[in-house]
Amino acid sequence: MPDARFQPLTGFRDFAPQECAERNYLFSCWRRVAARYGFAEWEGPTVEATELYLKKTGGELPTQLFRFQDQGGRDVTLRPELTASLGRMAAGYQREYPKPLKWFEIGSCFRYEKPQKGRLREFYQFNADILGEKGSGADAELISLAIDCMRELGLTAGDFVVRISDRAVWLRYAAEHGIPEEKTGDFLAVVDKFERDSPETCQEKLAAFGLSRSELVEFIAHPPVDCSPRFNEVQADLAARGLAECIRLDLSVVRGLTYYTGLVFEIFDTAHSLRAIAGGGRYDALVGTLSEDAVNLPATGFAMGDAVIAHLIRQCPAAEAQMNAAARLRSCEAFLALADPARRPELLTLASALRNKGVSVDFPLSAAKLNNQLRRAERQGARYAVIVGSEYPALELKTLATRQSRQVTPEELLFLLSGKAARPSLPESETTQS
Amino acid sequence: MPDARFQPLTGFRDFAPQECAERNYLFSCWRRVAARYGFAEWEGPTVEATELYLKKTGGELPTQLFRFQDQGGRDVTLRPELTASLGRMAAGYQREYPKPLKWFEIGSCFRYEKPQKGRLREFYQFNADILGEKGSGADAELISLAIDCMRELGLTAGDFVVRISDRAVWLRYAAEHGIPEEKTGDFLAVVDKFERDSPETCQEKLAAFGLSRSELVEFIAHPPVDCSPRFNEVQADLAARGLAECIRLDLSVVRGLTYYTGLVFEIFDTAHSLRAIAGGGRYDALVGTLSEDAVNLPATGFAMGDAVIAHLIRQCPAAEAQMNAAARLRSCEAFLALADPARRPELLTLASALRNKGVSVDFPLSAAKLNNQLRRAERQGARYAVIVGSEYPALELKTLATRQSRQVTPEELLFLLSGKAARPSLPESETTQS
Repeated sequence: MPDARFQPLTGFRDFAPQECAERNYLFSCWRRVAARYGFAEWEGPTVEATELYLKKTGGELPTQLFRFQDQGGRDVTLRPELTASLGRMAAGYQREYPKPLKWFEIGSCFRYEKPQKGRLREFYQFNADILGEKGSGADAELISLAIDCMRELGLTAGDFVVRISDRAVWLRYAAEHGIPEEKTGDFLAVVDKFERDSPETCQEKLAAFGLSRSELVEFIAHPPVDCSPRFNEVQADLAARGLAECIRLDLSVVRGLTYYTGLVFEIFDTAHSLRAIAGGGRYDALVGTLSEDAVNLPATGFAMGDAVIAHLIRQCPAAEAQMNAAARLRSCEAFLALADPARRPELLTLASALRNKGVSVDFPLSAAKLNNQLRRAERQGARYAVIVGSEYPALELKTLATRQSRQVTPEELLFLLSGKAARPSLPESETTQS
Repeated sequence: MPDARFQPLTGFRDFAPQECAERNYLFSCWRRVAARYGFAEWEGPTVEATELYLKKTGGELPTQLFRFQDQGGRDVTLRPELTASLGRMAAGYQREYPKPLKWFEIGSCFRYEKPQKGRLREFYQFNADILGEKGSGADAELISLAIDCMRELGLTAGDFVVRISDRAVWLRYAAEHGIPEEKTGDFLAVVDKFERDSPETCQEKLAAFGLSRSELVEFIAHPPVDCSPRFNEVQADLAARGLAECIRLDLSVVRGLTYYTGLVFEIFDTAHSLRAIAGGGRYDALVGTLSEDAVNLPATGFAMGDAVIAHLIRQCPAAEAQMNAAARLRSCEAFLALADPARRPELLTLASALRNKGVSVDFPLSAAKLNNQLRRAERQGARYAVIVGSEYPALELKTLATRQSRQVTPEELLFLLSGKAARPSLPESETTQS
C-alpha cells in the first residue's frame, strides 16, 4: 500500500498493475462466459440525466447518488447501476437487433455509501440481460450464465448457492391474506428485510398487515408444492444442464428494488458470510415505463459486482490459486540485453522485428551493466533473455527458468519465438548450462 | 440511430453491440501493442479530488471540468485526463515495481466541451507512459509504441505523421531573444497557437516580445542543424526500428499544457484534416510537483483518444475494412435448433456440454418454428446450425455458409466443434447438399 498522501478519495480505488491484472482476470472470465452464451457487449454513458433514474424507480430516488448540476445547469447523476441505461438503450435500438436481445455490460457504477467490506463508492458491475423473451427459458438461461461465471472463476457448487424466489408467490400470498393491493409493495419490503431485521422488529412490521412472524417462517420453510410453476420450469431446465445442485427455492429472497415483476434470485457464499455476490430477476414492465409505453419489452437480468466476488475468491484456495496464476505479472516474453553499447541499433532492429511478429519484448532504455539487465529480465518475469553483443549477428538465447543457453542467429530467434510454438522447448543436445 | 426520446445526454455516447464491437476492436489493438512493448495496465478512479488537478497545472484549472461537491462536501472532479492520477499513483507505488515503469491505461475521461467532430463530453483515452527513465531511449520507445498503435489499426506511413518538437529549443530561442524567464510560458503559448491564429493576431502577439512572425516562420521552416540533440537521438533510434519515415521535426508543435519539459510530439493525419490523433511528451517535474518533492521521477507519456482515430479509420479504406471485419457481430459459433419440443432437455444438455468445452452456443429460449430458428441462426452470424429432433441422438449439423449438412452424434459434435480445429472443415465426401 502506498503512502497515505498518495491515496485516492475514500471508497475509490487505484489499480496498480498487480491489482489491475486481477481486475482484468475477472473481466475476462465474465467476457468469456458471456461469449459462450451468445451475449453481445454494450456500454452506456457514465453520466445520465437524473430523470432517467426517477422514471425507473417511479419517484423515489436512492439517497446515495453522486448527483450534481453540470455547467449547463442539467441535473445529472453518475450511474448507480446499469439497468436504467440498458432500458433506455434497448427501447431505442430494439428494432435493429434480432430478439431476444442477449446483452451484457461491464462498467463502473457509483454510490455514495459508507465504505466497508464489499461496498465501495466506485465499483464494477457485470450486467447480463435478456430482453424480448417472457418465457422461463430466459430466466433459466440467465441463472445458468450466472452459475457458469462462478465456475469459470474456479468456484464450485460447494462454495455458493443460488437462492431463487418468485414475486408472484408473494403477490398471491398477500392477496390471500387480505393485504390491499396498494400495500403490497410495503409488504414485500418487510419480507425483503425478514432475514436482517430482528424478530421483534419483523413481528411488529407484520402485525400491521395482520400477520405473524411465525406464519411467515413456516411459509418460507415449507413453501406449498407447486407454489411457483415458473420456479419448477427453471429447475427442470437447469437440471437438464446439470446445474440442479447449485440452486434452491428460497422465498425469503425478494430483492429490494420495486421494478422486479416475477422470478428473482441472489447468489450467496454457502457460509453466508458475505453480502450477495449477484442478484437479479424479471422486470417485464421497466422498458415500458422508461419509454412511456412506446416499447413493450419483457426482460430479465442480473448484476454481479467485483468487490464481493473478490472476497469469496480469496476465501476459496483453489479459486484464489487460479486467479493468482492468471494474474501473475509477466511484462515480456523476451528481454533483449545489450552487452556491447555499440550494438544498440542492432538491438532496436531485432526488438522491432520480434514485436512485428507479435512477440512481447522489452530491453534497457539506457546503458546498464549486463548483470543488472539480466536481473531485471528475471524480476519482470521474462521467459528468455537474448544477449546482443560484439559477436552480433551471433546472439545468446537464455531460458531464464533453466539457465540454459544457446547461440542463435537473428533469423533463428525470430523463428523460435514467433513460430506456432510460441514457447519453444529447446533441444537439450544443443544447450549448455550457464 | 434510435428515437430522439431515447438519446443519452449531449456529448455522451451509447454503445449498442455494433458500436461496442468497434470500440472493443480499438481497445484490443491498443492492449495488444502495449503488451508487445512490455507495458503493464493500470487504472485509476473516475473521480478525483479537484485539488489533484490544481496541483498538476500549478493553479489555473481548465474551465471545462465536470466538477461538483459530493454528499460529504468534498470538491471533486470527473477526471478530464489521466496523467494526474498516474502521477499520484506512480508516486505511491514506485517502490513496488522495477523501474522504469512502463504503464498504460484505457479509460473514460470527461470534459464539458461544445460537442463537435472528434470532441465529446465523455471519451476514451489510451495513455502510455514511461516513468523513471530520463534518457532519449524512453522518448523513442514511446513514439515507436504510438506509431505501432497506428499500424496495428491498419494505418500506414502515408496516412499519418508524427510531428516532434523540443521545448528546449524554444527555451533557448526565448533566452537568445531576450525574453525574460517569467514570460517564457506566455511566449510558448503564442508558438502553440501559431498555426491556428491569423497571421495578424500572431504578429501582434509576437510584437509584444519584440519578435516578428516572419522570423518565426523562417525558424520553424529551417530549424538550425543540431538544434535538438534529443530529437537527433530519437531519430536515430527510430531509424534503427525502420520508422524514420513516420516522423519529422516540427518546431511549431509545443503542446498547450504547461507541465511538459522536453521533447513533445503530436500525431496528425497526413492531410491535417482532423484534430491531433495523439499527443504527449516529457514531463520530468510533474511527479515531484504532485508529491510535493517527495518523489523525483522523470517521465514521458502520450495519450490517444478514441474519437479522432475513429474518424481517420473511416477515411482510410484498408483500415476501415480491417475494423469492419474484426468488429463483425457473430453472436455464436453454433445455434442449436429444436425440431421436436419434447427434446428440449437433450438440447439443454448438449448446449451445456458444448459451452463447457468453450464453444459459443445459442438456441431458442421458447418454442418457435424450425424455419424461423434457422433464419435466426443465420441473422446472428452463427457458423453452424445443429438440429435436435425426434431422431436424437442423431443430430443434423448444418454449415450455414455452404448449406451442407451431415448426421452426427452428440459425441462427434463435441469433438468437431471443440477440438483443436475449432472451425472444422467437414470432409466433402460425408456431406450432403441441403
